[in-house]
Amino acid sequence: MSGNAGGGFGVSTIAERELIHFIREASVSTAPDLIKSIGDDCAVFGKATGAGQWLISTDTLVDGVHFDRSWHAPELLGRKSVAVNLSDIAAMGGRPRFVLLSLCLPPSLSTTWLHSWLAGATAILAEYDCVVIGGDTVRGSELVISVTVLGEPAGKQALYRCGAKPGDVVFVSGPLGSAAAGLALLQRSKGEGVAVGSLWQELLAAHLNPVPQIELGQALAMSGWVTAMQDISDGLATDLAHICQESGVGSRVYAEKLPCLPILDRAALFLGQEKKDLQLKGGDDYQLVFTVRAGQEIALQTLVMTTLHRQIYQVGVITEGCGVIVQKNDGSLQDMSFQGYEH
Amino acid sequence: MSGNAGGGFGVSTIAERELIHFIREASVSTAPDLIKSIGDDCAVFGKATGAGQWLISTDTLVDGVHFDRSWHAPELLGRKSVAVNLSDIAAMGGRPRFVLLSLCLPPSLSTTWLHSWLAGATAILAEYDCVVIGGDTVRGSELVISVTVLGEPAGKQALYRCGAKPGDVVFVSGPLGSAAAGLALLQRSKGEGVAVGSLWQELLAAHLNPVPQIELGQALAMSGWVTAMQDISDGLATDLAHICQESGVGSRVYAEKLPCLPILDRAALFLGQEKKDLQLKGGDDYQLVFTVRAGQEIALQTLVMTTLHRQIYQVGVITEGCGVIVQKNDGSLQDMSFQGYEH
Repeated sequence: MSGNAGGGFGVSTIAERELIHFIREASVSTAPDLIKSIGDDCAVFGKATGAGQWLISTDTLVDGVHFDRSWHAPELLGRKSVAVNLSDIAAMGGRPRFVLLSLCLPPSLSTTWLHSWLAGATAILAEYDCVVIGGDTVRGSELVISVTVLGEPAGKQALYRCGAKPGDVVFVSGPLGSAAAGLALLQRSKGEGVAVGSLWQELLAAHLNPVPQIELGQALAMSGWVTAMQDISDGLATDLAHICQESGVGSRVYAEKLPCLPILDRAALFLGQEKKDLQLKGGDDYQLVFTVRAGQEIALQTLVMTTLHRQIYQVGVITEGCGVIVQKNDGSLQDMSFQGYEH
Repeated sequence: MSGNAGGGFGVSTIAERELIHFIREASVSTAPDLIKSIGDDCAVFGKATGAGQWLISTDTLVDGVHFDRSWHAPELLGRKSVAVNLSDIAAMGGRPRFVLLSLCLPPSLSTTWLHSWLAGATAILAEYDCVVIGGDTVRGSELVISVTVLGEPAGKQALYRCGAKPGDVVFVSGPLGSAAAGLALLQRSKGEGVAVGSLWQELLAAHLNPVPQIELGQALAMSGWVTAMQDISDGLATDLAHICQESGVGSRVYAEKLPCLPILDRAALFLGQEKKDLQLKGGDDYQLVFTVRAGQEIALQTLVMTTLHRQIYQVGVITEGCGVIVQKNDGSLQDMSFQGYEH
């Protein structure tokens, strides 16, 4: 944003990454007890390693921008409001512990809606053994939900975005593009005829009720083989670009290797969108993208399969250079760095 | 709020204390590493005492509800957005360390305004050796500023609202009613003719640029003579009632002993308001209210005078029972519990 400073134009013309720079401008990277400042999924403070090290992250969701109440049931929105924060803890290999809930509530919101939202939020918190320790409720003209989560590293220390080295292998934790397709289906139908039980059920659930990858994140961090990690909130093209930027490396992603739900092909056709675009640019999946030391791929896949009974997916490699280069099925290359979803 | 649950009416009919109950409903009071949950100025987590104990608090300010941009200069609003959070740390006898800034920004907001706001926020943070370590910026239709602050106890442990005992003496840290009078003057004139330099300068400054009582809070906590403390954000009648509620005691406040700026008499006359109402119900002063073990009043006043070169003001006593009883100059008594300012 530095190039624009003082221009005096409205913030609507500024991209999200530039707005983040605005806060980055004010932040510092060194202070006593500060282990990691802004520029990762969480900030890290406290002891240098082990017990006494804390992770913290905050995310704000705005009605009409990040969710649509006309089709997002309050219980599921309560779950998602918390899940997107838990995902930041997952991305550092952490265990969520405490949250603070800040709500800006419009007068039109009913207490019934609010109680359902709270039931969803407390349900997912209980599932991850995480508790509410504070918050704030204020009045405003639109619903704004801000959640701050505290966690601790499951292993000796948190896993950052900055550890990827050329030769490392790029993995993702699960199907991509599901949430973006689910959202597009909801937008197209305005929520009609796409209820739970429909053909698109899995895609809708990916958008409406994402699952933070807490257990997997902890297992990956504790394996000792993972060099960098982050969650996929803005699309792989953007989120892998963050790892590249923070690590000072580049990456090549093989489009044909990107995992997806079987139903995604049919949804892409129905929506008239490229499947690869949904997988690379689609946000809100809350899967993990991570890099693994070369030679440890099989060992890690085996570890995850035997302990968590699930797969992880090799999708590319870390290279010299910078950015995210996508190799399509025909062998052609395309720089897609930061082409993900912008909230 | 439990009596209203399921009623389905809008939140506009619900008072702020009831909204806080909404979050309290979801919160727990016991968990490993959780020392103090919701119900105080900050939650406290980490080690039971000393190094490794952390304080956390979050406050949300909404345009048109908590501030008015037509007369609140962005630099001063940046300072105040942080100050109200630092005040929560002061109220626990803590040292502020880190903040997270979350901003919901309307498209109409200029980058010039935003940079001035940030300049104010970073200036006050620097004054208290506190640093930005994260945050979030999102788009919305109205400006919402949410600040989360982390601190640590200056002494061995934090000072709570729950330690007051009958016989303790009630003190406040400085003049009351200033900010409420300042706000009323700004509202009446719509910001015209009440610029810095005016007759009302001190009252305006109290509202526009409050000073968190960080140094005093630390000195009081470390003295060992203070039994309970909190900051005055919603007016003495409400904030002392919180101490009474959490401590299971009552209090008597002597109206004639409440300190104020000399200009408050004139402002009350000009505004047609009772001076005592401004002092007891007026919010946003961010002074501290605290209780002192009987017999230590003089020692504490001397300590504060010799180390910080300032006064503290004895205004009442803690009693058996509950609530805040105000004794007027004519000797009559009035229960004013929770009659403070509602945001």
